[in-house]
Amino acid sequence: MADKIQTPIDVRYQETDQMGVVYHANYLVWFEIGRTHLIKHLGFDYAEMEKRGIVSPVVNAHISFKKPIRYGENVHVETWLKAYDGIRSVYAYDIINKDGEVAVSGETEHVIVKKDSFRPLSLRKAFPEWHHTYSMQVKE
Amino acid sequence: MADKIQTPIDVRYQETDQMGVVYHANYLVWFEIGRTHLIKHLGFDYAEMEKRGIVSPVVNAHISFKKPIRYGENVHVETWLKAYDGIRSVYAYDIINKDGEVAVSGETEHVIVKKDSFRPLSLRKAFPEWHHTYSMQVKE
Amino acid sequence: MADKIQTPIDVRYQETDQMGVVYHANYLVWFEIGRTHLIKHLGFDYAEMEKRGIVSPVVNAHISFKKPIRYGENVHVETWLKAYDGIRSVYAYDIINKDGEVAVSGETEHVIVKKDSFRPLSLRKAFPEWHHTYSMQVKE
Amino acid sequence: MADKIQTPIDVRYQETDQMGVVYHANYLVWFEIGRTHLIKHLGFDYAEMEKRGIVSPVVNAHISFKKPIRYGENVHVETWLKAYDGIRSVYAYDIINKDGEVAVSGETEHVIVKKDSFRPLSLRKAFPEWHHTYSMQVKE
Repeated sequence: MADKIQTPIDVRYQETDQMGVVYHANYLVWFEIGRTHLIKHLGFDYAEMEKRGIVSPVVNAHISFKKPIRYGENVHVETWLKAYDGIRSVYAYDIINKDGEVAVSGETEHVIVKKDSFRPLSLRKAFPEWHHTYSMQVKE
Repeated sequence: MADKIQTPIDVRYQETDQMGVVYHANYLVWFEIGRTHLIKHLGFDYAEMEKRGIVSPVVNAHISFKKPIRYGENVHVETWLKAYDGIRSVYAYDIINKDGEVAVSGETEHVIVKKDSFRPLSLRKAFPEWHHTYSMQVKE
Repeated sequence: MADKIQTPIDVRYQETDQMGVVYHANYLVWFEIGRTHLIKHLGFDYAEMEKRGIVSPVVNAHISFKKPIRYGENVHVETWLKAYDGIRSVYAYDIINKDGEVAVSGETEHVIVKKDSFRPLSLRKAFPEWHHTYSMQVKE
Repeated sequence: MADKIQTPIDVRYQETDQMGVVYHANYLVWFEIGRTHLIKHLGFDYAEMEKRGIVSPVVNAHISFKKPIRYGENVHVETWLKAYDGIRSVYAYDIINKDGEVAVSGETEHVIVKKDSFRPLSLRKAFPEWHHTYSMQVKE
């Protein structure tokens, strides 16, 4: 069963736009904050992966914007691993607003690649422990 | 038939991340630059809409990242109106890299709402000329 | 005597650039996080000020970059009120890196203005309690 | 005599904040756009410098905010080399608004360092042609 973790977000003034709400692209940044937290919670460290010359770019992202979020609001992001097949990891996210409603939801799909060439690698082969934990997360 | 317009993008150093490529959330910003250009090309002005107290938030976004883009690269975004029904407008985007390949593609879906309440409005009723032009763009 | 408060900062991946370090403009955003925290610590709420139609733009900023900061590093910002004369408030900041060194220091000078016209106001007259507290902070 | 070059800036919606104006940290990004343009105008290429493992971080920045800039406004940045001593380069900037007024002015001071160690280098020794051109720019 997938762990679902909660990460509080302090809305930054810089993240608002003249519509008076958080600018939509920033939710991808919040997703990343949740994702980093989930990875740490599962016992891994993304910064360490990069020190080995491997990065994990996003290959697909979907975002659904349901309600605006404003500066000064208390929000958090809930993050979990939705799918994993040894190559691709799909993370899912709900951003919960001050009234407990899902304001934004989304998914991002990631692979791992060598930093210098962007040649794809298998997470299973490159990081066997990571693979094991992720496989357990998405098991029924 | 939908007009497809090209907008050159100067990749900003600030848009790169330590992976050495453009940070993924920035493509939503580039989509917006293409969208603003398309709207102007079709004869309208988004800044004027806002002066009337109406804003046009994104309700859904999808992005597919195919190839990384680097600082110093010559790129442009192609933008067109993919769907429109009087309420919702769906814009589509291709970001073309220095080799003429589609590096990133995506779609964003928009409505219009009153800025103070975020209550939805019909584009058809609020901006009849805009409605007319958009209807023509998506006609077979 | 001025209160000096500490605010932890989680370095965001998005804040790095291809130099492999935090992009320099982001430190102004971190300064703002510290400033917001200090204002709350002193008993005020910047979001409330804005609800009254008053905003507090920066009129001058100075930043000194001493050491790069990297993703994954534990840092915090120290913030205090350095000067105040009833009209202008000068906040000072030190960003402390993982080794306890000052990595970045800076100052920002602020006034308050009406949001619609950007006409300047006196903090003393518009917010007497705020004025009183700030005056005490900068007293010898 | 220093060349002063003009670079048009398209104000991005993403650069506004809920004050309804351009968020102050973005002016450092615009300064960089002007600086990159000036460097190219003088016959050099910053991206090429980085390919040789050398980067040019900001060590000091000062910004003076005189008038707000809004979305949809036609602005440009004027950039010139203000000082250079073989080690440090000081660039100066004026951001000119739609009425021809200086809305923002500033300076940034740069050195060059090795990307992997951030150990300082002399521009004179590492890039003699660059040194020659910069020396001519700041000559009386």
